[in-house]
Amino acid sequence: MIGTSISCQVTFLPSERIIKINSGTPLIRAARQAGLHINASCGGNGVCGKCRVMIKEGVVDGGISDRLSLEDIRKGYRQACTAIITEDIVVQVLEAEGLTAGILGTEVPERHRAAMHIFDIEELQEEGIFIPPVEKFFLELPRPDLNDRQADAGRLLRAMDEQYDERHIYISHFLLKRLRRVLRDDDFRVTATLARPVNRRFRSRLLNLQSGNWTGRNYGIAVDIGTTTVYGQLIDKQTGKILAESGDYNRQISYGEDVISRMIVAEKPEGLKKMHDMVTRSINNIIDSLLKQRSIDRDEITSITLAGNTAMTHLFLEIEPHNIRRSPYVPVSTMFPPIRSTDLGLHLGGHCMALLYPAVSSYVGGDIVAGVMGSGMYRTEKLTLFIDIGTNAEIVIGNQDWLACAACSAGPAFEGGGILHGMRAGAGAIEDFSLDPITLEPMNITIGAQPAVGICGSGLLIIISSLYECGIIDQRGRFNQKLKNERIRQGRSGYEFVLVRAEESGIERDIVLTEVDIDNYIRAKGAIYAGVTTLLAEVGLTVSDIEQVILAGAFGSYIDLDSAITTGLFPEISPDKFLYVGNGSLMGCRMSELSNHIRRDVVKTMQRMTGFELSEVPSYKDQYVASLFLPHTNAQLFPRAAERRQVMEKLKEKAELLA
Amino acid sequence: MIGTSISCQVTFLPSERIIKINSGTPLIRAARQAGLHINASCGGNGVCGKCRVMIKEGVVDGGISDRLSLEDIRKGYRQACTAIITEDIVVQVLEAEGLTAGILGTEVPERHRAAMHIFDIEELQEEGIFIPPVEKFFLELPRPDLNDRQADAGRLLRAMDEQYDERHIYISHFLLKRLRRVLRDDDFRVTATLARPVNRRFRSRLLNLQSGNWTGRNYGIAVDIGTTTVYGQLIDKQTGKILAESGDYNRQISYGEDVISRMIVAEKPEGLKKMHDMVTRSINNIIDSLLKQRSIDRDEITSITLAGNTAMTHLFLEIEPHNIRRSPYVPVSTMFPPIRSTDLGLHLGGHCMALLYPAVSSYVGGDIVAGVMGSGMYRTEKLTLFIDIGTNAEIVIGNQDWLACAACSAGPAFEGGGILHGMRAGAGAIEDFSLDPITLEPMNITIGAQPAVGICGSGLLIIISSLYECGIIDQRGRFNQKLKNERIRQGRSGYEFVLVRAEESGIERDIVLTEVDIDNYIRAKGAIYAGVTTLLAEVGLTVSDIEQVILAGAFGSYIDLDSAITTGLFPEISPDKFLYVGNGSLMGCRMSELSNHIRRDVVKTMQRMTGFELSEVPSYKDQYVASLFLPHTNAQLFPRAAERRQVMEKLKEKAELLA
Repeated sequence: MIGTSISCQVTFLPSERIIKINSGTPLIRAARQAGLHINASCGGNGVCGKCRVMIKEGVVDGGISDRLSLEDIRKGYRQACTAIITEDIVVQVLEAEGLTAGILGTEVPERHRAAMHIFDIEELQEEGIFIPPVEKFFLELPRPDLNDRQADAGRLLRAMDEQYDERHIYISHFLLKRLRRVLRDDDFRVTATLARPVNRRFRSRLLNLQSGNWTGRNYGIAVDIGTTTVYGQLIDKQTGKILAESGDYNRQISYGEDVISRMIVAEKPEGLKKMHDMVTRSINNIIDSLLKQRSIDRDEITSITLAGNTAMTHLFLEIEPHNIRRSPYVPVSTMFPPIRSTDLGLHLGGHCMALLYPAVSSYVGGDIVAGVMGSGMYRTEKLTLFIDIGTNAEIVIGNQDWLACAACSAGPAFEGGGILHGMRAGAGAIEDFSLDPITLEPMNITIGAQPAVGICGSGLLIIISSLYECGIIDQRGRFNQKLKNERIRQGRSGYEFVLVRAEESGIERDIVLTEVDIDNYIRAKGAIYAGVTTLLAEVGLTVSDIEQVILAGAFGSYIDLDSAITTGLFPEISPDKFLYVGNGSLMGCRMSELSNHIRRDVVKTMQRMTGFELSEVPSYKDQYVASLFLPHTNAQLFPRAAERRQVMEKLKEKAELLA
Repeated sequence: MIGTSISCQVTFLPSERIIKINSGTPLIRAARQAGLHINASCGGNGVCGKCRVMIKEGVVDGGISDRLSLEDIRKGYRQACTAIITEDIVVQVLEAEGLTAGILGTEVPERHRAAMHIFDIEELQEEGIFIPPVEKFFLELPRPDLNDRQADAGRLLRAMDEQYDERHIYISHFLLKRLRRVLRDDDFRVTATLARPVNRRFRSRLLNLQSGNWTGRNYGIAVDIGTTTVYGQLIDKQTGKILAESGDYNRQISYGEDVISRMIVAEKPEGLKKMHDMVTRSINNIIDSLLKQRSIDRDEITSITLAGNTAMTHLFLEIEPHNIRRSPYVPVSTMFPPIRSTDLGLHLGGHCMALLYPAVSSYVGGDIVAGVMGSGMYRTEKLTLFIDIGTNAEIVIGNQDWLACAACSAGPAFEGGGILHGMRAGAGAIEDFSLDPITLEPMNITIGAQPAVGICGSGLLIIISSLYECGIIDQRGRFNQKLKNERIRQGRSGYEFVLVRAEESGIERDIVLTEVDIDNYIRAKGAIYAGVTTLLAEVGLTVSDIEQVILAGAFGSYIDLDSAITTGLFPEISPDKFLYVGNGSLMGCRMSELSNHIRRDVVKTMQRMTGFELSEVPSYKDQYVASLFLPHTNAQLFPRAAERRQVMEKLKEKAELLA
């Protein structure tokens, strides 16, 4: 979200497919985006040397490896995996190595990703709600004299009223102790930092007072406390701009990967404190990094807004989570007061307030509320389906008038858990993929164009979808044992598909996808699909009523929508209705840092949110069992998925004819 | 104010004067109260043996000393100074020793003291404003189940709303951390301690939460932070009763007796902290004593209300007092937020809130505001003059509609300062007095019926008044050197009057009153009188407009009103208009502990209070100079004082004729 990119035009030959793509993108991704298949086994770094293309016009950065001779290079050959697009180019996909690719290039169905939702600060400004909950005001107070001997505090309050129309301000004992000096250090010129209440009825709070004019330096921090990862943003409250971003593992991970095991630790003596300390260390690391990136002083941060699921929020606040995991699943609180950040052990100034996103229930946490706020779902007229996929998938259905939410345990498959070569989205993770339907040669695209070391969630989705579309696996996720190809083989735990051979991989072992992996994926996607359909049924609606789908979460950004629908992760909804908001929780925190109206709206929104406990809806179990197929037991629910499979069949036939 | 006394009837012969007096009173005080003079030089303890009387009917406790033979005792002779009234009696004042006393007994003008204002808890109850700012509520919450899985905090708030109509309650992070356990320790039966806001618009605050029902134990503490002495009361918030009282010196005294010198100390490095620590130790001592007296646990105190003058309040709160003593005399604040008592170093529970009385200005402090509230002045229709005499005298004029206030430096004379044998009101201090106009033999009545060791403020006033009425000193306070009496003599620093001879005193030296002492008194009373008349003039009123006078402060309780008017301390106002409220500041604190309406009224009252800086009103100086006479330069302002002097003259003549 920081900075801007130049758009470059890439023309692929012989298909003459043309796409616009940001400069800095590896060429292989541009090809994939254009729907072209290029054999690319190793995933990147030019190890396998298979993905060579010829640059016919224009220049690319890199793309050179030992696999290319000087002669090759002079002729314009480059490795697509490491060639970076910097300007308009014309690329020849090599027919010798990409025969079927050529055909695919002209005839595969279009790819779809969710449109990126861009957070629009101007929108807030135009609507007049760009009013940070913590604002700075510069005041030049009249000096006391014999005709005006109002006390220092009263003088300050009078000026706030007269100059800024701000009344009902609470001044703490802490500030009264410093007030005399601060007022006089720069001749009664002071900057007041004011925290506004959520409810206009209540009082504002003077957070800080500085000698002189410091209104130009007012910063906030937004933090998403994820179970796995904590993300933070440094925000300029004057402009609304993000000045820096940072992320860190949630250090609680050393006490257990999932939320339940951390809650169990928290019930042990000192356990709760430990859990608090761990995540606080992660947050402090992020704060340190954010401040360092922009050389901003700790004391210049006037507020920090955080969101996490209900358990994470309890652990961070050192509030006992015991009953969150025990029927009837009652958290201690769903609303949290503003807390002095130092009381939470955060490395920020004593005046800095920590604001926590409220939750709806034990299983619909502040991260989801923040996502609903950040994505604007809470104020759209469109009937919207919001899905945040993490270890748990949270699902919200509704619009500005009502919201129904539920959470379902998708399991860790989307984060690489329970998958033999699964991994989190990191360097070397296969995240995009295509398959030559004839040769079954893969096009592995890895994060960071590194030799492949595993498969992340988005890769898993597209690999399984490709295998299914090409008829390599059936509806139950079982391999077609009639196919004779060296990439399909009997492994230790049943059949498997060899994605990357040991010599081309970054781990010196074959990277494979097993039937067990596919099974795990099917269970994960089944839980989510069943969650969506059950929640829809509970509110008396069907898939066809959905006017918009908002995807949130790290995983969401790379989801190939066609693959998701083909495998039955999402219901069949037109791809143009999909919107991706990135880390919705973080976006919600940022919006709260910038607009007090959002904080007010949160309270109203929460009152419109109804939580459903899926495990207690009898039909959920049935929906789940019916979803344990690709795409579903009832194939009629996925007509386009069937179509795609047929298209692929025909392509295969055509390619076989040509061959 | 604790306990009740039985009223006894005392008949004095030969005058047949009859008075009603509480059992436990020394007989000499009853005589004095009846306006009778009995020679009594030593002050008490039967040392001089002069005050013998004969008990004709009934029995007294004590009154026996070496000065009485067995025969005397058998006949019914007793020493009036140490005889304690326990039942109805008839007393013969001895003519041999009290010739003139007999005459005085029948003919001296009646004595007057201000009527005692009794704080009436029933009044608060009847008016429906007996609603403590911190109250306890017992709640039996429904247990969570699958049909009611509201979070613990929400459940509590819902019950407060449904069962007690209490809404908008703030729950701190501190309490959220304990909430789960407390709710479940006694099966969702809990006692919530709620602090109400002054302004109904704002939020209440949950201060504490206890398992089980603790509504029967809700205590508060009221504290008057005096410059010299700190007084405290333990209050049962259920009944409004005072359970214990305690007092201690303000330990800041070791850094200076007056406010100014302590403010100077506070400006030195660490000085402010020292001043804070000192007074906090005094308050903690009082808290310890109050709790011990009634075996109440620290944690059962839910609030403490304190009042002091503006400087004292600043020092206690560790707020810089620098500008209080520098023109234009601007305090840091006149309003103070509720503060956690532990943040102030008070030995009370973490949940206990400290509430500070607001001030009007640097020189009209929270103690006066508390006095105005405690005395009910703020809601009377009568035009009232309120005077609180301490080291400084604070004066308030007004009624329910408006209040004008000013402070004037009376100096320490009323507390014994600047008087050769002056002392604070304590054991052995001469506090009441009468003079035989012929023999000039004194009737010294001391605190605790101890041999005299000095003169306290009320004694000083009445001694000077008596000397003046008997013509021993003139209008300028100079001794009539023509009078030949061994009690009048030339001392080291001018003429002096011997009150107690060395052999009869408790200090083995003569206790005398000098012309310098009289001069100091005149300056002190002149400052107060000038303050009253100047303030009256500033608001366009005269003495005759005053419908009620309220006296506050330790000194006020023993003021002989006739002496006060005779010497010109107070303007000539009918004694039946005087009311004494005791420690008004403490009473105001106690009322605030019991009625949140009073706290609301304080804010409104303060808005009606206008502070005047007497030193800047040009006429004040003139008024002051004119007041440096007994009673005043303009004797016409004190017609009754002149009358009293004439009556005394006539008595003298009559007595001389009889002699």
